[in-house]
Amino acid sequence: MNVSEAILRTLLANGVEVCFGNPGTSEMHLVASFDRVGGMRPVLGLFEGVCTGAADGYARMADKPAATLLHLAPGLGNGFANLHNAWRGQSRMVNLVGDHATYHRQYDAPLQSDIHGVAKPFSAWIGDPASGAEAVSMTAEAVSVAMRPNGGIATLVVPADISWSDAGALPEVKSAPPAAAKVDARAIKSAAEALRAPGQKVLFVGGRAGRAAPLHIAGAIAAKTGAKLVSETFVPRQERGRGRARPERLAYLGEMALAQLQGTKSAVLVGAKAPVAFFAYPEKPSTFIPKDCRVETPWTSQHDVTEVLAALADELSVDTKAYEPPVAQAMAMKDGPLTGETLGLAFAALLPENAIVVDEAITGGLWAGIASEGAAPHDWLTLTGGAIGDGIPMAVGAKVACPGRPVIGLQADGSALYTIQGLWTAARENLHIVTILLNNRSYQILNMELDRVGATAQSDRSRSLLALDKPTIDFTSIAKGFGVTAQRATTAEEFRNAFKRSLAGEGPQLIEAIIQG
Amino acid sequence: MNVSEAILRTLLANGVEVCFGNPGTSEMHLVASFDRVGGMRPVLGLFEGVCTGAADGYARMADKPAATLLHLAPGLGNGFANLHNAWRGQSRMVNLVGDHATYHRQYDAPLQSDIHGVAKPFSAWIGDPASGAEAVSMTAEAVSVAMRPNGGIATLVVPADISWSDAGALPEVKSAPPAAAKVDARAIKSAAEALRAPGQKVLFVGGRAGRAAPLHIAGAIAAKTGAKLVSETFVPRQERGRGRARPERLAYLGEMALAQLQGTKSAVLVGAKAPVAFFAYPEKPSTFIPKDCRVETPWTSQHDVTEVLAALADELSVDTKAYEPPVAQAMAMKDGPLTGETLGLAFAALLPENAIVVDEAITGGLWAGIASEGAAPHDWLTLTGGAIGDGIPMAVGAKVACPGRPVIGLQADGSALYTIQGLWTAARENLHIVTILLNNRSYQILNMELDRVGATAQSDRSRSLLALDKPTIDFTSIAKGFGVTAQRATTAEEFRNAFKRSLAGEGPQLIEAIIQG
Repeated sequence: MNVSEAILRTLLANGVEVCFGNPGTSEMHLVASFDRVGGMRPVLGLFEGVCTGAADGYARMADKPAATLLHLAPGLGNGFANLHNAWRGQSRMVNLVGDHATYHRQYDAPLQSDIHGVAKPFSAWIGDPASGAEAVSMTAEAVSVAMRPNGGIATLVVPADISWSDAGALPEVKSAPPAAAKVDARAIKSAAEALRAPGQKVLFVGGRAGRAAPLHIAGAIAAKTGAKLVSETFVPRQERGRGRARPERLAYLGEMALAQLQGTKSAVLVGAKAPVAFFAYPEKPSTFIPKDCRVETPWTSQHDVTEVLAALADELSVDTKAYEPPVAQAMAMKDGPLTGETLGLAFAALLPENAIVVDEAITGGLWAGIASEGAAPHDWLTLTGGAIGDGIPMAVGAKVACPGRPVIGLQADGSALYTIQGLWTAARENLHIVTILLNNRSYQILNMELDRVGATAQSDRSRSLLALDKPTIDFTSIAKGFGVTAQRATTAEEFRNAFKRSLAGEGPQLIEAIIQG
Repeated sequence: MNVSEAILRTLLANGVEVCFGNPGTSEMHLVASFDRVGGMRPVLGLFEGVCTGAADGYARMADKPAATLLHLAPGLGNGFANLHNAWRGQSRMVNLVGDHATYHRQYDAPLQSDIHGVAKPFSAWIGDPASGAEAVSMTAEAVSVAMRPNGGIATLVVPADISWSDAGALPEVKSAPPAAAKVDARAIKSAAEALRAPGQKVLFVGGRAGRAAPLHIAGAIAAKTGAKLVSETFVPRQERGRGRARPERLAYLGEMALAQLQGTKSAVLVGAKAPVAFFAYPEKPSTFIPKDCRVETPWTSQHDVTEVLAALADELSVDTKAYEPPVAQAMAMKDGPLTGETLGLAFAALLPENAIVVDEAITGGLWAGIASEGAAPHDWLTLTGGAIGDGIPMAVGAKVACPGRPVIGLQADGSALYTIQGLWTAARENLHIVTILLNNRSYQILNMELDRVGATAQSDRSRSLLALDKPTIDFTSIAKGFGVTAQRATTAEEFRNAFKRSLAGEGPQLIEAIIQG
């Protein structure tokens, strides 16, 4: 048995069962080990950002890490943007980054670069073993880091000579997931006091507090104390729809976010840090919580959100079992031209029970989010790190994690184009994912941002950097090229029919929704 | 005038005229400045790797930097692989990386990350200005770094608040390109002595020594001294074809490279370091020059290759003007199935005069390279850093730099898929680039490497990570989706006709060459 096989066996022994890979020469022994060690599912991405985004989507749904298999620093670099999103989304992940043989590093061969430098921004842990035994024990450690209470990205460098060396009698190594820190009783008391105080109060939730169980507790606490339940703008995974607690989503636009939190006297934060502006704008504040607001942080990244919320509910004598979240009004569909509104209404009305929605629709998807608050129960995955291009890969990962659940992508045109290759992986793995591609033929959000930062375009030269026209992009043709069944919709009715057909179909499906106005 | 405009004016004053960009909110003031300051050509890439690869191709042909415009660390990360290739290819480049406003950095907003960490591996210089005045002077310094004798990648961080601040009366700043170090007379004498010594000799050239003028001198020196003229495997830009000096290309396969250099007693290196194996393989050496060989390095990265070679020719009393490179035999075309051989022969026979060939064909393109040695004079650009996915973007950059010259891409299927979005930029800019897409439906090189590293695939599980089938990818459909005229060829005759039609056509053209065996 060589070390590659021992690494693989260790991953399997610690519950890692899927590897999203884009290997090169330095990873060939790891590739070959997939044959000799059964049980690991290799999934090929044509570009590393597909692999890292898929691992992110997988982790959000499975709540355990997938492995990625990447080729030296450039391969890791290609995966950077979605590793950034995964890090911001508190995901679990184990990256295996193949490297040159240890004795070959001194020669500065063409692909040599600084793997640690690239990995550091998003990695909670980096391992660079000097021996086969260390590679195997570090593999176990990597999984343990990924299983920290609020996630972690572990990056293990695997030099080629270590991967092909004899593992001798090295057994696989098991590691235990680290326990969460004990709930801080004093912080809970203080938070409870803040929620009992008079004046406007906010219970602000994010991260893992978006899951149904903790969110239900948070909803019950808010109902009892009169606090407003607000969620961060981009929750990694929110369980929502009928029967679920309904936080008010903090607006992306700073002006609106400020208005939402204006007058707040007490804020309790669970699962997320205090909200800040996504970007700075001239003459506008960077933070939203009023300066005179009391801020309580009973949760830290070492804590389990559910334990913290349960302790807070106890302290406040909240009967969480009796709590029934308010029901959102279902909204009727509308005929006519296909707009963000008519698409969103049809999407919500037809959304199947227990669906997973991957939302990277940016400006075009606001209506879909609002309209589906009263839809059948579903999960909602968002762009947590702002690095566009995670939607198509995340849908792949979510479907691999949950093959029995419907997976639907709400995908903007601009962001789709960063990792469009992910469509092929969906076809290769025969994943029934319905991608709704909202084609408005521009980086619509940037046209808006251009005005918001106080810059103005006076000619076609700057607008040309923000428009996706000349030529328009034919996503139907591209999707077919990658082996995905695709159709185009230009009216609300066409969209409804296409959505029904796609939901009833097999394998990956794409609807190119040509959005007006 | 704001600082964005002053930065742009400084770039223009120092000869930077093209900006390959993929901007986000933090770069909106730079975007708006394109309108207010005339003269800069903005070129949109749908993915940052397209921008950095295009800037690389532009620099190789224009021998001056283009700017890139990228969005914080994730945008820079997406551009990493082609920045790596550009660095390894000694290219010139100025990256403008927008960042959060300086006062906003403390809040750790979602897109915040470590720009310096990502930039360090490939950057010769990183600037992070604290004021508008510094931003402008650093812009000039960045161009100066890029204009170093053997290239340089300069990365300038541009915080949003600095970009939108008032530049007052800041003039643009001009910088002078740094001069090359004086030729080292002692090193030249020693190198000449090595080339006069008895026994087998090699003049090893790479980097900028691939350009016609220095290569001609090198050819003349080799002819006079009886040294074998050998080039590195991946030259950033080699001027070749009829009338050009013809170095023997060092083989990618270590076994063959060893054989090429076996018995060498003296080696003189100009424009490149001593060659090393691309990867390490079990029981095989990492370096190729024999241990007992005398190695002379009259060139360092501070020197100009042409000055070094001219001094060496002088020292050896070589009459470079009288030198006539040996003529390569032209090779006849063949009919039959479309293979690497029949495609390569047709490519070489039909190659137009003064063409720029961007070669990322990997295994499929070996014949095209061999057959075109005797073809019409042309430039040959290769994958210098081993990070696949530079072909399509480099062709875009080369055509922007040299609009009057034919540009032809030899593009493998696997590597095309990393930056396939670059096809759209070619359509948007209406660039007449002929992309020959060699579709063999696999990462053929990895199938070879799997065996070479001594690993063997025993089941479909590992082969599935190396094959591009199930489903096969329809590049014709994808290219059309991006607005590129596309056709498919499956025989040698079909390919010839398609190549002729594409060369005679307008705008971007793609030929999907289905390669047999």
